[in-house]
Parts: sequence; C-alpha cells; structure tokens
Amino acid sequence: MANPATKAPAAADKAASVEAIFQWPIRIYWEDTDAGGIVFYANYLKFFERSRTEWLRSLGIEQQRLKDSSGCIFVVTDTHLRYHRPARLDDELIVTASIVEMGRASMIIKQQTLLKTEHTGARSAPLLCEGTIRIGWVNATSFQPTRMPTSLYACFPS
Amino acid sequence: MANPATKAPAAADKAASVEAIFQWPIRIYWEDTDAGGIVFYANYLKFFERSRTEWLRSLGIEQQRLKDSSGCIFVVTDTHLRYHRPARLDDELIVTASIVEMGRASMIIKQQTLLKTEHTGARSAPLLCEGTIRIGWVNATSFQPTRMPTSLYACFPS
Amino acid sequence: MANPATKAPAAADKAASVEAIFQWPIRIYWEDTDAGGIVFYANYLKFFERSRTEWLRSLGIEQQRLKDSSGCIFVVTDTHLRYHRPARLDDELIVTASIVEMGRASMIIKQQTLLKTEHTGARSAPLLCEGTIRIGWVNATSFQPTRMPTSLYACFPS
Amino acid sequence: MANPATKAPAAADKAASVEAIFQWPIRIYWEDTDAGGIVFYANYLKFFERSRTEWLRSLGIEQQRLKDSSGCIFVVTDTHLRYHRPARLDDELIVTASIVEMGRASMIIKQQTLLKTEHTGARSAPLLCEGTIRIGWVNATSFQPTRMPTSLYACFPS
Repeated sequence: MANPATKAPAAADKAASVEAIFQWPIRIYWEDTDAGGIVFYANYLKFFERSRTEWLRSLGIEQQRLKDSSGCIFVVTDTHLRYHRPARLDDELIVTASIVEMGRASMIIKQQTLLKTEHTGARSAPLLCEGTIRIGWVNATSFQPTRMPTSLYACFPS
Repeated sequence: MANPATKAPAAADKAASVEAIFQWPIRIYWEDTDAGGIVFYANYLKFFERSRTEWLRSLGIEQQRLKDSSGCIFVVTDTHLRYHRPARLDDELIVTASIVEMGRASMIIKQQTLLKTEHTGARSAPLLCEGTIRIGWVNATSFQPTRMPTSLYACFPS
Repeated sequence: MANPATKAPAAADKAASVEAIFQWPIRIYWEDTDAGGIVFYANYLKFFERSRTEWLRSLGIEQQRLKDSSGCIFVVTDTHLRYHRPARLDDELIVTASIVEMGRASMIIKQQTLLKTEHTGARSAPLLCEGTIRIGWVNATSFQPTRMPTSLYACFPS
Repeated sequence: MANPATKAPAAADKAASVEAIFQWPIRIYWEDTDAGGIVFYANYLKFFERSRTEWLRSLGIEQQRLKDSSGCIFVVTDTHLRYHRPARLDDELIVTASIVEMGRASMIIKQQTLLKTEHTGARSAPLLCEGTIRIGWVNATSFQPTRMPTSLYACFPS
C-alpha cells in the first residue's frame, strides 16, 4: 500500500504495484464522535462507503448517472465489521477498498480503516477497523437483484 | 402545556386547554451525542422534525402517502435555532411544535426542546433549545413552490 | 414474541412466555432515509442500539449512571448485519434484542428489525434486517477490556 | 473568491486577494441524502462545521489539542440557515467560512454552500445554502462561557 498524500484525496497509483489497494483519506469531525470521546462505531460504515464511492469513481463509475441511465443501483446486502482501536476528533484516517469476490449480480469488498500518524506511512499505520461488505446490483424501484450490464461489469479489474 | 406521560409518545390532549401545544418525547442515545459529552447541536433539527412529523400525523397527514398521491412534499426552507443548555446521554426530552404563521404555500413553525425531569412537569422543564422552522410545499421533482390543495390546507388548525 | 402495543414503546412481558424477546418500536423519519428512497443501511446499527439501550434499561441498567459510577462503558466490538428488505419513510419497525452468549467481559446479542403491518402481529411481521452484535465491557478512558462487576453481571438473565 | 482546485481540499490563498474567503470542498455521498432525492437539510450544519474546523486548522487551531491543553471548547450557540436550492448525490460543493463579528468569548461566522459546476469557477457557482453561526468559548465541563486566552484570540485575523 502506497503512502497517501497528506492533504489531497487521491487514489493509489494502481500501476505502481501489484499490491496497490485503493485508499481514501478521511478526517474526523465533531459529527463523527460520540460521548465516549471516540468515533461512533456506525460511522465506519459511512467511511467505508465514501471510500467505495471514490474507488468506483476512480474506475469511471458515477452512481447518480448510472442510476439515471440504467434504472439500477448498488445496494449493501451484508456487512461484517470488527473494531480494533478507537479513532478520535481531528484524527486522519486512511480507508481502503479492494474486491474479494466479483460476480455478475453482486460483489464482496474488503475494507480497512487505518490511523494516519505523523511518523509512519500507511504500511505501518495502526488498524482501527476492518470490514467485509457485500454489494448487490438491483432495480432501483423494485429492489430485485439483476445482472450488471457488460459495460458496467467491464469497469472492474479482472 | 400538559404534563406528558412518562413512557408513551402521545400528543397533548388539544381539548384540555386553549394553550395546548403538541409535544413529543425523545430519548437520547449514543448516536445523538458527540465527544463534548453532550448532544450534537445539528441533531436538534432531527428532533424538531420528528416532532413536526408526529404533529402532522396527529392532524391526519402521512407524508409518504401525501407524496404518492399529490407529487408534492414539504421541504424546510429556513431554520433558526438557539441553544441554551446541553442534553446528555439517557436524557428524556420533550419536543413541541406549534404554528406561528400559516400560508397556502408555506408555514412557520415554532419549536422547543425541554428537558424532562423527575420532579417537574413539562411546564417547568428547563428549556434546552428553541427554533423557528419555515416549511414550503413544493413539487417533489422540480422543487418549485406550489399552493397546497384545499384538502391539505384544511387539515391545519385555523 | 408478543404483539407490541401500537403506539407505546414497551418491553414484552418477559414473564408471559418462555419465548418472550425484548422488542422496541421505531418509526422511520426523513433523517433515516437516503436518495434510494429507503432507510440508509448504516442506520440499522442505530436502531439496534436504541433497542439494546432500552433492553438494558428494562434490566435496570442506565448507561450514563453506570459510566459515572464505574468508570467503564459497553463498547461495540463486532457487528454482522444482513439486509433482507428495505424500510421506507413512515414505516413502523419492531427491533428485538436477545442474548446469544454471555461472558464476564463481553456478550453477543442477536437482533432483528421487523416491519410492523396493520394486519399482522409481530410474529408474522416481515424480517427487514438481522444482526449479531458483540459488546465488550471496557475502561472508559483506556478502552482496555475488563471484567464486569458482579452487581452488573447479575442484572442479566442467566 | 478564488477558484478552488478541482480535487484537492485546500484553503484559498489568503494573500491572493483582499476578498479571499476560506473555502473547503465537500463531496455528497449516499449518507448525506434523504428520500426526497436531495441532501437532508440538517447535514448543511455538518458541512458548515467541517469548513469551520478546517478554517480553524488553517489558523493553527487544532480543537482536540486545544481542549486537552485549555479545558475549554468552542460550542455552537445560535444557527440561522436559509436553503435556496437542493444538492444531490455525487455533487461537489464548496463551503466557505468568514468572520462577521469577533469577541473575546464568542464570534459570529458567515458561511455559504455553493455548487461546484464544470464550467464555472466558484465566483459564479450557484448558492445552495447560507448560514450565520454563533460560536461560544466555554469550559468543557461546566459549559459556562469564558474569555478566550490571548494566545488563542491572536490566532484570528483582526
């Protein structure tokens, strides 16, 4: 995993390494925290989705346009998260996304949230939360599962 | 303002008093708090909306059905909130709603959030937050302002 | 599972049946939905927590008081959710909570979100989402796992 | 107002112009939207706070460190928002922050949310929402108003 730029949201250069994994920076604001003084655990699902959205965008997939043109949307059908260490106000996080399993009607994404620290690169950043997210491709009105069109399926790395 | 039942969400009995104002109980959970140890201020807009929604329901107005049948929705166009005292985890709040000004295309609602305490009724409950919310009636697709149908307008107290 | 009252949040009478499971009503507001027209999936974690909080309260456990007196809090360490059907604006949900596994430093809770319908009791309510949540008991400052005091542990059904 | 870089969060170069106003880019994700198909209005308070937080950071003020060292925090005491046009999924917004009034115990900030469009700079970006936010400096335990230390007060432009 490459060391992300400090301030600019940017995808890892996928050509740089066979191990390159998409990563997205997230900053923690008051809205993300709870009275325990740490990030409210449900918000990691939001962080994971922001990273997946930007990963899709990096593959040329804009979800609003996709919905307008195809009448279908991606929906989350299964989430499994494990929380290791808490994040706090003002922390900078790195959120990864990578495909574990790719089908014609669904996919499984593995994601991690790491704490960006001043003296370390992303490779040695402490792991805060990791998750496995299953996404389905469904009709936006009926929510019935359907097969992705070939043009969409082809956007994903094989 | 009547003293609300301890556990059951219920509108004040409007016939009981000319001063009767709609009120709705809200309990504070972890999701509502921030690292300051108090309720995150943006969430009072959510509490006000829950109370307005239940107030509309008490007038016979179900928003999803209304959207399906009329193609129009209520949208918030102006909010002004003043924060007086913080609320904390496990607190029980009382959230009021009452019309200040009623038009054919918009209305202004006054709302208060009070802290329910064991030894006091709602009348003497400490004021935590108060707000003025302007609501418009708009086309759900174009978001253009429009006049409420008479059947809807007639639901509101004159 | 008993049929909950229509408007009043209330725990099922645990003495009524060996099958009695705690349940809590949740109403869907605009804040809970997303542009897909359905409830945003991350919010089910909030609904599950509201139900767990009220279940704890029904066992005599108030989390803010517990933190103040013990210096410890419950934290979520693992969540696994499966989404079956979407909920929509104005829907009434029933959210259950029951212990699957109880230890001295952690517990596993099984939870379901059901759609309350006019013509059915909770027993036949459609299942929208189900989850398994692992909760740990930790020091509120260091977040180190610790053993529950006997007085707390004794609050839970054996 | 300067034209912000397309992808990188960055403060406007304050030396570039006497009219330079702090601005911060925000991208709209599913979490920000509601069933009306637009951004949920309460979320503009979050966007405004993200921009204020980054504006404070650009002035050398890190809120978590400030709380740890001073025992005080900034709290929001008054908000007034006017909503002009809706934002939608995938939209890129520009959120500004500038001081209207600066005191020793509180300040008033004016903020705008603009829609970033492909063919226009920020100067001609459509105005979506504008607000006036009053911030107080309070003791983090008692929430009593207090005067800012000179070292903090001096961070703000006079």
